[in-house]
Parts: sequence; C-alpha cells; structure tokens
Amino acid sequence: MATGRLVEVYLDLLSQPCRAVHILLNCAKIPHRVHTVALRKGENRTPDFTRLNPMQKVPVMVDDGFVLTESDAILKYLATKYYVPEHWYPRQPERRARVDEYTAWHHSNTRPHAAKVFILEVLLPAQSGTPVEEVRLVRALSQLDDTLGKLESMFLRRQPFLCGDDITVADLLAVCELMQPVGSGRDILLDRPQLQSWRSRVQSAVGDAFDQAHAILYAIRDRRQAKL
Amino acid sequence: MATGRLVEVYLDLLSQPCRAVHILLNCAKIPHRVHTVALRKGENRTPDFTRLNPMQKVPVMVDDGFVLTESDAILKYLATKYYVPEHWYPRQPERRARVDEYTAWHHSNTRPHAAKVFILEVLLPAQSGTPVEEVRLVRALSQLDDTLGKLESMFLRRQPFLCGDDITVADLLAVCELMQPVGSGRDILLDRPQLQSWRSRVQSAVGDAFDQAHAILYAIRDRRQAKL
Repeated sequence: MATGRLVEVYLDLLSQPCRAVHILLNCAKIPHRVHTVALRKGENRTPDFTRLNPMQKVPVMVDDGFVLTESDAILKYLATKYYVPEHWYPRQPERRARVDEYTAWHHSNTRPHAAKVFILEVLLPAQSGTPVEEVRLVRALSQLDDTLGKLESMFLRRQPFLCGDDITVADLLAVCELMQPVGSGRDILLDRPQLQSWRSRVQSAVGDAFDQAHAILYAIRDRRQAKL
Repeated sequence: MATGRLVEVYLDLLSQPCRAVHILLNCAKIPHRVHTVALRKGENRTPDFTRLNPMQKVPVMVDDGFVLTESDAILKYLATKYYVPEHWYPRQPERRARVDEYTAWHHSNTRPHAAKVFILEVLLPAQSGTPVEEVRLVRALSQLDDTLGKLESMFLRRQPFLCGDDITVADLLAVCELMQPVGSGRDILLDRPQLQSWRSRVQSAVGDAFDQAHAILYAIRDRRQAKL
C-alpha cells in the first residue's frame, strides 16, 4: 500500500455494521479518516452522498478511488489488502469458509432479529411519537431469542469465538448487532451466560476500540434512563 | 486435492441456493456426488440429516470430512479449494470485494424478495389449500420490482455481469433466485430487457448446467399450466 494514503470511511456509529468497520480499522491500526454521515439527519440522502453510494447506505469505504459498500465486504477487503493479523480473516480455506459461513448466516438471522428490537423500541417511537407496539416487540424478542440460542448451541458450542479459537471479522459483525438493543437500555444477553462470556472475550480482544465505537450508543442509553 | 475423492453435496434442486451450488459443481467439473434432500417430504428433519446440519437446511457440503453450510460460503470454498477458473471468484482484492459486496447485498434483497413471490404463489397455497393472498402478493411484487430496478441501475449499469466483465458466483446466486418464480409460471424479467440479456449471458456461460439445475422447476411450471 502507498505510504501516507488514508482509507476514507463514511460511517454513522449508531449503525451496527459501521461500528464493526470502525473497530477493525482502529484495532488493526489501518490509517484511515472517518466521515460522519448522520442517518437521523438524512445525511445519507444528500446529492453528494448519493453520488458516492446510490443505495444511500452506510458504511462506505473509499480506498485510493475504489468505492466499496456492504460492511461484510469492507471488512474482508481491509483484512486482505492491509495485511492485518491473519486471525481476522484466515487464509486457510476451511478456516476462511467458517467465517464466510457465519457472515452469510448473519445477514438473515443475527442482523434482522437484533435490529428489529432496536427499531421497535427506539427508532419507530422516536420517529412517530407513538408508544412501542407490544405485540410486534414480543414477536421480535422471540425471534431474537431463537437466534441467540443458535449462536450458543451451534457457533459457540465448542469454541471461544464464533468461527474458531481466535477472533475474526464475524465476531465484530455479531457483537455490534447484539449491542444495538443496549441503546434502549435492554441487555439481550442478560440470561445468556455463554454469549456474555463471548462478548467479554471480544471486548478484551479489541480493547479500547470497543468502547470508542459504542460511545454514542451508551450515551443514548444514558439519556433514555435519565428520562425515565 | 486427493484423486478419486468426491465432494458430497446435500441438495434439493427446488431450493434456489442449492441450484447455484449444483451449477458451479457441473460447470467447473468438480468431482462430486449429489444426495437429494426433499424438503417437501421433510427429509431435512430426519435424525441423520439433523446430525449433519443441526440447522436442518440445504445445501450442505462435505469435503473430506469438512462439513460446510450456507451456499455463499460453499461456492467460495469450492472456487478456492478446487482451483476453478479464476473468474468465478477473482483473487485480486478489488475484484473479489465486488463479489463479496454483491453476495452480502443479495441476502437482504434479491433472495428474500424473489423467494417471497414463490412462497406466496406456490408454497403457501399448496401447503394450506387456501387461495393466494393477493394483498401480500402485490406488496411482495412491488418489493421485488425495487430490487430488480437496483440490479439493473446499479450492478449491471456498465458491465455485462453483476460483478464485472465475466461471470462469478454472484451471478449464479442471483440467477437462481430470479428463476424461482418461474415455478408459478411467472417470468419476473418479462419487462426487464437488461436483466433478460444478463440471464441469457449467464445461461450461455454455464451451458447445459443451467437447464440441468432447473429441470425440476420447469416440471412444476408445466404441471401447473396443464392444470389451468
């Protein structure tokens, strides 16, 4: 890679996948510059940002003119291009396949189910000023519980991290989703000691990068609690 | 790879992601053996299959004892491990990132939206004996139309295949999803000349493997049409 060049990333740290990218960049010390795109202010719909990403979504990465979307792809690209420690995205085909297997599963399970709880408890009530729809919330919590059960009984059954003995980009994507309901003061891992231990291992592995990425989510939680 | 060894795959060709795996195996001439798991007969819930994949889903691949689920991961593993022509999953980081970008997007867009139309028009009425729920179908078709628009205006805007000048595993995942509603006699690409041309390019690129994978879907369409 060229010296002095920075990876440019467009992020909103209230977005789970953006936090995963933020953590990897900091943890692996990849020289980068963060541009904040506040979704709640509609900054993803400005003409400039739409030119950059017609899908109007974050995260977006620009590396020497190469524009890439989708956190999953960005994490794998950064791990490959910037020679980060190999455990993040192993090169050995079987170990790499485990990461690809989890990330594919993630998109239809961990991501939609954890996100929905946050959307129903925080986003929709804030946008519409109406109370939480309890029936939908109960259903969302039940779907999430099924996903948490699978994370414990399948992915973490015999290993400390989702894809093996060491942390990978899969753990980052997962932990950032499972932290999202914290914004509503809800720790969805309270009754899940196995997932709690895993989260602690992830936090230890990434160090300060964890709290840096989650500072804004903690602030939202604290503001909500002060109001109650 | 060891000579004489076969990749074992567990597939139901009525499942879109299974067809994508089937096409790559045949097209790239990877020595393999197919085990049929008929979802409609519940063969994915037998004790034997549940031991193989506790998620009870197809496809599953077993390569010399290595068990892998998730079509996305299976396709990428096969492309890597079996030295298939490089265009299927390019090694150059930027080109590979384009494939990872599409496949990540696919899981939350092409897959759920095309699948839903087939589920509402074919699966649910067949299982419950009740008529198609028109309101839900109209909504599903509108979401699908939005996805088809994005496939044309973003992914295929300046290139013949989804991720560049040549076919990749991304095209296989996408084409198999977009073929699914054919089972209900609905060609969702009728008013989409750009996607039609792309589908023809994919068909030409994979040859007979395309119709082999789709034979059972064509049979369902023909049986439905004979009934009408």
